[in-house]
Amino acid sequence: MDTRQPVALVVGAGDATGGAIAKRFARGGLVACAVRRSAEKLEPLLAEIRAAGGVAHGFGTDARKEEEVVALVERIEREIGPIAVMAFNIGANVPSSILDETARKYFKVWEMACFSAFLCAREVARRMVAREGGGRGTLLFTGATASMRGGANFAAFAGAKHALRALAQSCARELGPRGIHVAHVVVDGGIDTAFIRENFPERYALREHDGILNPDHIAENYWMLHQQPRDAWTHELDLRPWMEKF
Amino acid sequence: MDTRQPVALVVGAGDATGGAIAKRFARGGLVACAVRRSAEKLEPLLAEIRAAGGVAHGFGTDARKEEEVVALVERIEREIGPIAVMAFNIGANVPSSILDETARKYFKVWEMACFSAFLCAREVARRMVAREGGGRGTLLFTGATASMRGGANFAAFAGAKHALRALAQSCARELGPRGIHVAHVVVDGGIDTAFIRENFPERYALREHDGILNPDHIAENYWMLHQQPRDAWTHELDLRPWMEKF
Amino acid sequence: MDTRQPVALVVGAGDATGGAIAKRFARGGLVACAVRRSAEKLEPLLAEIRAAGGVAHGFGTDARKEEEVVALVERIEREIGPIAVMAFNIGANVPSSILDETARKYFKVWEMACFSAFLCAREVARRMVAREGGGRGTLLFTGATASMRGGANFAAFAGAKHALRALAQSCARELGPRGIHVAHVVVDGGIDTAFIRENFPERYALREHDGILNPDHIAENYWMLHQQPRDAWTHELDLRPWMEKF
Amino acid sequence: MDTRQPVALVVGAGDATGGAIAKRFARGGLVACAVRRSAEKLEPLLAEIRAAGGVAHGFGTDARKEEEVVALVERIEREIGPIAVMAFNIGANVPSSILDETARKYFKVWEMACFSAFLCAREVARRMVAREGGGRGTLLFTGATASMRGGANFAAFAGAKHALRALAQSCARELGPRGIHVAHVVVDGGIDTAFIRENFPERYALREHDGILNPDHIAENYWMLHQQPRDAWTHELDLRPWMEKF
Repeated sequence: MDTRQPVALVVGAGDATGGAIAKRFARGGLVACAVRRSAEKLEPLLAEIRAAGGVAHGFGTDARKEEEVVALVERIEREIGPIAVMAFNIGANVPSSILDETARKYFKVWEMACFSAFLCAREVARRMVAREGGGRGTLLFTGATASMRGGANFAAFAGAKHALRALAQSCARELGPRGIHVAHVVVDGGIDTAFIRENFPERYALREHDGILNPDHIAENYWMLHQQPRDAWTHELDLRPWMEKF
Repeated sequence: MDTRQPVALVVGAGDATGGAIAKRFARGGLVACAVRRSAEKLEPLLAEIRAAGGVAHGFGTDARKEEEVVALVERIEREIGPIAVMAFNIGANVPSSILDETARKYFKVWEMACFSAFLCAREVARRMVAREGGGRGTLLFTGATASMRGGANFAAFAGAKHALRALAQSCARELGPRGIHVAHVVVDGGIDTAFIRENFPERYALREHDGILNPDHIAENYWMLHQQPRDAWTHELDLRPWMEKF
Repeated sequence: MDTRQPVALVVGAGDATGGAIAKRFARGGLVACAVRRSAEKLEPLLAEIRAAGGVAHGFGTDARKEEEVVALVERIEREIGPIAVMAFNIGANVPSSILDETARKYFKVWEMACFSAFLCAREVARRMVAREGGGRGTLLFTGATASMRGGANFAAFAGAKHALRALAQSCARELGPRGIHVAHVVVDGGIDTAFIRENFPERYALREHDGILNPDHIAENYWMLHQQPRDAWTHELDLRPWMEKF
Repeated sequence: MDTRQPVALVVGAGDATGGAIAKRFARGGLVACAVRRSAEKLEPLLAEIRAAGGVAHGFGTDARKEEEVVALVERIEREIGPIAVMAFNIGANVPSSILDETARKYFKVWEMACFSAFLCAREVARRMVAREGGGRGTLLFTGATASMRGGANFAAFAGAKHALRALAQSCARELGPRGIHVAHVVVDGGIDTAFIRENFPERYALREHDGILNPDHIAENYWMLHQQPRDAWTHELDLRPWMEKF
């Protein structure tokens, strides 16, 4: 039996949601393993977690590269501890008309938001099903409005996000009965990020009316999902500000 | 400003889920107002809540009767406190082939599982939108697998549950922007009840493997929904045992 | 073997969609049995069908009354011919805030749009499954945008339409394997009716740009569904004008 | 105004559904342009269309290659005629556990079933929106059960099919108001193909009970969709044998 401290692997540990998830799990007593392409950019997050008394490691990994993902999971499991939960949180949307969308961008959006999720899910699931005493662990995927419906100028992003949701469902139906909790969180609304603040000041102004999502509040739901007892698992939930149209 | 203790109104406070919801909210410091047709049958629940240090009131109300629902909400608001959360939990499924379904049963299933929810939601919402300082409160509805898909022998139940889900969505889209959090919980699996224990022993045997839902675990999610800050509300989540096919 | 001409029973044979369906099936060689509450109002439709060489009968039936529906189906099967297809097309939407919705209207909307559909489906299905040589026939239900999502001010209508969709699904899953084709048509857009012309002139003006649905074009899809061979049945399709947002 | 005969471009014109679609459109008076990777394998289909009096051209094109798709559409529009309808029909499912799925196959399934659809849709749409007198044309996509839900061992296929559905929806919402009819056909059941005949003899035996889909019957629906007047377009329909569970 592995007695080391369990690990929360957060892939796409950016400045907002992913970072908040890492902090929340660290606060809950897990070792936060935060991943983004540039290890350097992780430093403020790691420092914040450590300052709060948590344990954190940063990894500069390109999650679209199979060999990097394989090596990452291998290394964490060997050197740090068993991955108890993986939160996949990569995704970027650059809207384009279908008429102007480039093959390169269409591919890249899918590669980032879906293909890398597949790689991470597979590598982590392989470990989780093989735990001594039976499969266990949690796989969490961040969805969006575009996970549920396509839209004008959203062919690439909706395609990737629909595929990610299909991945989450497929994992849930296969791995649930093997003890792995798989959940998909549909974030429907603006998130309080530097990006929104700088590029959409009008939207950002809703912040004072709670009109955009606080990353810490999103993260709280990831923690809640990980804590659910196995007789009552949630596979999918949505999160949106009270004033958001849907 | 109303300074009395806030109320959790639980309609359909039966022996399992509804009762567990009432207990959870009482434990959280709300006054539990438990409702079922027979006030007498509520006594064990009220006693249990009180023994645990909570405050509870029981009401023998037929939620299908408009005048009874109007009077119930009026009385609670006047005599006990402002309703902070309403959990609607009535519903009974008696499967029949569409060929054999009676008009009487088809109507009764809808009346219980949907019409009474409409009455309760309307009466409570009228109070919640009119709170001093702005609308606030939570409306929670218990759904089922049949909320999402019709099935052979399920025309009546699926009809009522689909209509209930439409009610929850309609309320959310109208009342969310007025400060009322509306959520729909899809319970997909057997629940640990006396009914299952006595009628479906094979299913009940799954209990020791966490194969049926513990009502307290369901209730925890109602509490969680009520606690969500308004920048990150969930409208719908599902709950199912890890081994349940879906 | 019943050698009489097969019957198309159209319940809710109003001036627009229902009437167009009756005409289309009459043109296809079926005996049109048109039903609405007032038999008198059916006269122009019957005259039009007959003038075009079709056979048509009118029935003043309140489809919300079980005994009337039972008697109607009994009489058609005995006096006219076997019902080959039933198209259910009743439904009226009068939007209200959930706060203002009356119990009476909430009930009536469901009774008209859903309960009467249940009565008609059951009575007709009982005949269709019992045909000499094996079950056969088609049950068609008219849905709307509100069949798929609730909306502000649409609690009653969305509830009834969701319940109708659940009925159609339940019938399909039970009766499909018994040879009955059950389909649900989601009409998403304004229809070219006297009501729209008189009450929504701006919307009606879209007619010249094909921005509202032509009832004859809707009806063509009902006919198409009835013609589908049983190895390739459609259970659900949507219909909307090219310029309609969705 | 282009007075040449309109073209039906069928991408993935295999031996079953795709071939049947090409034949149906040729019978309807369009020039069938059939595409698959191997031009040689198209010969029997082209011969059959010509023998029936139709006009057909075959193209050996790898629809996953942007430059090939660009050249194909360019050549057809220049040498043959304006593409009035494009039917995209590529897709292959090779089930694997998520634990065993290879990165290579996961990518290839998406590339075939989704990325190539994006390329074809974009290239064709660019022509369709630019027609003299206003945008017009039809884009048809073949979906599957896996378009609607993920499943154990279906992560790759469901991912690709969900993404394809998102593409169809995104195109519909952007291009519908520009005059292009976009539809998605969910084929839910076994199809009468050589593959099923040889590999799933038990399933194939259902053929004599109409338990698997006849490709010609599927194709009839593609034709029907192309014929729909623009005031009553279908975006999505399902097709399944009467005895198929769903």
